[in-house]
Amino acid sequence: MNGRKEHNGGGSLHNIILVVLDGLGDRPCGELGGKTPLQAAFRPNLNSLMRNGQGGLLSPIAPGIRAGSDTSHLSLLGYDPQKFYTGRGPFEAMGLGMEVRGGDIAFRANFGTRDASGIITDRRAGRLSLGNDELARSLNMEIDGVRFMVKEGVEHRAALVMRGEGLSDKITDSDPHETGRAPHDVAPLSSEAEFTAKVLNKFLRVSRKVLDEHPVNVQRRKNGKPQGNELLLRGPGMVPKLTSFEEQHGMRAACVSAIPMISGIGGLLGMAVVKPEGATGTLESNFVSKLKEAARLSREYDFVLVNVKATDVAGHDGDALAKKNAIERIDEALGEMIRSLASETVLAVTGDHATPCSLKDHSGDPVPVVFSAPGILPDAAIFFDEFSAAAGMWRIRGLDVMNILKQMAGRSEKYGA
Amino acid sequence: MNGRKEHNGGGSLHNIILVVLDGLGDRPCGELGGKTPLQAAFRPNLNSLMRNGQGGLLSPIAPGIRAGSDTSHLSLLGYDPQKFYTGRGPFEAMGLGMEVRGGDIAFRANFGTRDASGIITDRRAGRLSLGNDELARSLNMEIDGVRFMVKEGVEHRAALVMRGEGLSDKITDSDPHETGRAPHDVAPLSSEAEFTAKVLNKFLRVSRKVLDEHPVNVQRRKNGKPQGNELLLRGPGMVPKLTSFEEQHGMRAACVSAIPMISGIGGLLGMAVVKPEGATGTLESNFVSKLKEAARLSREYDFVLVNVKATDVAGHDGDALAKKNAIERIDEALGEMIRSLASETVLAVTGDHATPCSLKDHSGDPVPVVFSAPGILPDAAIFFDEFSAAAGMWRIRGLDVMNILKQMAGRSEKYGA
Repeated sequence: MNGRKEHNGGGSLHNIILVVLDGLGDRPCGELGGKTPLQAAFRPNLNSLMRNGQGGLLSPIAPGIRAGSDTSHLSLLGYDPQKFYTGRGPFEAMGLGMEVRGGDIAFRANFGTRDASGIITDRRAGRLSLGNDELARSLNMEIDGVRFMVKEGVEHRAALVMRGEGLSDKITDSDPHETGRAPHDVAPLSSEAEFTAKVLNKFLRVSRKVLDEHPVNVQRRKNGKPQGNELLLRGPGMVPKLTSFEEQHGMRAACVSAIPMISGIGGLLGMAVVKPEGATGTLESNFVSKLKEAARLSREYDFVLVNVKATDVAGHDGDALAKKNAIERIDEALGEMIRSLASETVLAVTGDHATPCSLKDHSGDPVPVVFSAPGILPDAAIFFDEFSAAAGMWRIRGLDVMNILKQMAGRSEKYGA
Repeated sequence: MNGRKEHNGGGSLHNIILVVLDGLGDRPCGELGGKTPLQAAFRPNLNSLMRNGQGGLLSPIAPGIRAGSDTSHLSLLGYDPQKFYTGRGPFEAMGLGMEVRGGDIAFRANFGTRDASGIITDRRAGRLSLGNDELARSLNMEIDGVRFMVKEGVEHRAALVMRGEGLSDKITDSDPHETGRAPHDVAPLSSEAEFTAKVLNKFLRVSRKVLDEHPVNVQRRKNGKPQGNELLLRGPGMVPKLTSFEEQHGMRAACVSAIPMISGIGGLLGMAVVKPEGATGTLESNFVSKLKEAARLSREYDFVLVNVKATDVAGHDGDALAKKNAIERIDEALGEMIRSLASETVLAVTGDHATPCSLKDHSGDPVPVVFSAPGILPDAAIFFDEFSAAAGMWRIRGLDVMNILKQMAGRSEKYGA
């Protein structure tokens, strides 16, 4: 499975599973008597990992930085977001399930309403929802050798991806960012972007005609509803050209995720992307099937990333009890997974950021992390939660995780002699 | 008071107070039975903060680096000294209370003694003290559009600030750094500094004449004392052009300090600089008035920095008992401050470096830090001192402090989605 020479003085190479419980970290919750959902949860398997392994606190980017899932997963996989995170456009597009490639230009987009005089009267087209997929599809076209791909998101939201030679993301928004004004022509911010701006303005002119005549908008006009007849573009970014995970780390890798953005990052890194049956990215997701699939894949691949989204969903909902319950079900599924692993598998469990129920959003708090690997020295931490993890030996950043995992798996090159 | 949009999912924005106890950290002191002054001090308020908050150890720059107050305060305020610290000249000038601006060129200076043949016979002019202010004042002049400002320090010490268009700090010292030699003409180290060197050499020629004829020196000649008739320049640096604190962090800020250098940094960052009545920067300083003023300002400003110098003074004096007593009085004043704070204020207390009494100088030891904020999870640390803080969750650098404070105050931008 792995063609590279053995490291660590010829010791055996172990395979690795990295389980990321999305938005795992939390703060004291009133409903849980001042405990965090992790502290309140029955979590024998997570605690057993901590008792027998090494733990600590992880800042996904750096202490205090409020990470997004995109920047955090890049870090956890060993790709410095300060170098490779090119803005939200590309990751939003991936989040909508668009298959993007290094060099593509991606925008966040809204369907907005443009009146007869060309003025934007509603930047969200009345939050149109029905038919947004048809509107998006109608804008897929090719102009001057550049492919334009649009995909709808929730309500008026969408993303645009441009693919072709010689494109640049050094261009302005078409979104005027307020009503009562006409959409802007996009403008190049440097000479290398002149072609991009020109072809994109052509696309916008064509798209206005297509959208004005689209049956969905004809119907909305009839019903007196705001049309979705202007694609407002903002936040352009070039999809980063990333070294494949295999080239970067010397491991063939799989990504188990029900979340398009995480799957998108996996795809961009050349990982095998797997969405197991019943894995939905919701609180009702089938954690057992997801983690069992990870165990199965860990015999076939050197490295497996698993993202479990339910914890983040509960955090954004501010539902501490649901988060606690999700953790208990994940813990049970983790137990099943661990029992089916090859005995020498290296395993880490952590979060990509905290999503405290009290905030209903990401915070910059550190998250607990645990490493389990054959032969390592356990530390003093014996429970897996935000408080107890501080008794562990590690205070690390997301970018440290792959280095620690690889050395525990006997897969590190020596730095020096 | 704060015009920016609210972060953390619309949670409320809290105001922040950062209390820096200068030179706080210490090592075991014989006079205190082997305890540090912090360990020996009755400090119920600091301990209460630690018990209810999050703590740990802070390396102002990086582990083991012996920080100055200047580099440390830059770090603590979120400005990387590796990028912005341009040498001692500018900060010495600020330390003497000179108002400097980004782009000014500042030197450390000595009044030295030049004999009739032009040779430096004493680099410190017999540590002249009386009249050094008059000598300094006599050198304020304008040449070729460049303003020269000189201010005296302790004994023979002084600083020179040059202000004008097109100046550069890429020039050599005029100080020969040993007696028995003539002062150097300053020389440009790059072509951009040619004008600076030329106008500065002009200034030095004029200044020799002014100083030779100055009544203070005439009198010293009469009394057979070494004259202060040569301004010896070394350590040039351009005052850094720093993004204002408000632009950098999105907070209107005040700086409470009795120390010119700290006030100078605050001024350079556009903070409102306040020196409360009775605040002297000495062991006899009025801590209550200083910290009460900080509490008052925290209702008017989003962020308040307070520097308390007494701990550093006692450390430099090697007086462990005085340091312990200062800490006890500061703790009492902190208690009064805390009682008068808005309930949701975010508060951190730390040092800018250690000044162990056994060394009478700064060391590279880490210093304890504590964060208190609404809704955060307390950690295992329950006492505020160099030993006990290690039970806390944090191991951080100065540059992390603002990120942690802002996220606790609900004032962080998310990095990613």
